[in-house]
Amino acid sequence: MVKYLSQREAINIDQELFKEYMFSVDQLMELAGLSCASAIYKCYPLKDLTVNSVLICCGPGNNGGDGLVCARHLKLFGYNPIIYYPKRTDSSLYSNLTTQCVGMDIPFISKLPDMENLNKEYSLIVDALFGFSFKPPVRPEFADVIGALLETKVPIASVDIPSGWDVEKGPPDEGLQPELLISLTAPKQGAKLFKGKYHYLGGRFVPFHMANKFNLNLPEYPGTECCVSLI
Amino acid sequence: MVKYLSQREAINIDQELFKEYMFSVDQLMELAGLSCASAIYKCYPLKDLTVNSVLICCGPGNNGGDGLVCARHLKLFGYNPIIYYPKRTDSSLYSNLTTQCVGMDIPFISKLPDMENLNKEYSLIVDALFGFSFKPPVRPEFADVIGALLETKVPIASVDIPSGWDVEKGPPDEGLQPELLISLTAPKQGAKLFKGKYHYLGGRFVPFHMANKFNLNLPEYPGTECCVSLI
Repeated sequence: MVKYLSQREAINIDQELFKEYMFSVDQLMELAGLSCASAIYKCYPLKDLTVNSVLICCGPGNNGGDGLVCARHLKLFGYNPIIYYPKRTDSSLYSNLTTQCVGMDIPFISKLPDMENLNKEYSLIVDALFGFSFKPPVRPEFADVIGALLETKVPIASVDIPSGWDVEKGPPDEGLQPELLISLTAPKQGAKLFKGKYHYLGGRFVPFHMANKFNLNLPEYPGTECCVSLI
Repeated sequence: MVKYLSQREAINIDQELFKEYMFSVDQLMELAGLSCASAIYKCYPLKDLTVNSVLICCGPGNNGGDGLVCARHLKLFGYNPIIYYPKRTDSSLYSNLTTQCVGMDIPFISKLPDMENLNKEYSLIVDALFGFSFKPPVRPEFADVIGALLETKVPIASVDIPSGWDVEKGPPDEGLQPELLISLTAPKQGAKLFKGKYHYLGGRFVPFHMANKFNLNLPEYPGTECCVSLI
């Protein structure tokens, strides 16, 4: 069975990809975001949706960056992504990812829709708020968006970690329950408590040596696909 | 019908992707190389090969970089890529791409195999020597590798432009005749003279605005695929 990583292992793998294998953040984020968009396409194909709008909620770090890349690929796949990105990190990586989305005609909204409109106008919400370096509790500035994700009837797809979850211990009381979880590189321990409908693995870039060293026991990706179902 | 680009248009599109849309070379090269590996998987599936070794010939520029990325994804797909990269450009981009391949256990050879071994030991050769900024003639230092590609019986897959071809006018007398051509972003005018078996388009990252501005008339990519057949 695939290994579920501790937070420390996830951080070590990430560091090793950048420092030993010399991947750039741009490269791996591109592949990670693409795998998220591909998993979404498998679980929520356009033909099954009544509206094709997808709200992408992006946090300030790399999880939010994955969300920006995912939005761009969803646009190319024919969806209508709309981005909520309330707290932007001031670095060329994130500002370039934002410029790319703007150039692809992806709207950014500065305020979440009210609950009625959110439930009516969107088929899916992508939760790209916090990733594997998150430590609870959620900062007050993100309380509103987490609250909206808890209240909405729209299905949620979480990138790597459902936001607000402890990476190892899983959901807090009354925590977010996404319908789709896309684990990246390898699932984290908290994902054992995932009770949603679809669990995918993405981030098909792990060198075999690294997979062996960390005993990841990754499943085989089919053909050229960039994501694989874990349930 | 899809537009076939002049060399000037190809250069302008490339510049605009980097300067207006703020894509990084890392991002687009990752997607381009992935689409090359995917097209190869479609045309030369592992199950049909008697040996799974693929020789990747990389030039000093971005076409060679696409080849290095392609090699890495081919490895993840189960092929046995082997890289010939005789003239390396001294920049962090290329040295990092090289380190990634080394870390993935992809061998680099410093000398081409003799013709008998080349024909026997490889199922495919990827020609990632020169791309859309190439101007003939081939420099003397690449005469040997071009000569080997002309002589071998192993099928050749060319990345973007068959090496040695004029980007607009096509092949020189007795020029390279690849079996597979993977055009990137949009095909170049010379590709009209391609007589091989498979012509794929890769590089699924072109913003709609840009496609309209340059009248690219790109074909629809199926589903989440990163390449599409042009013939």
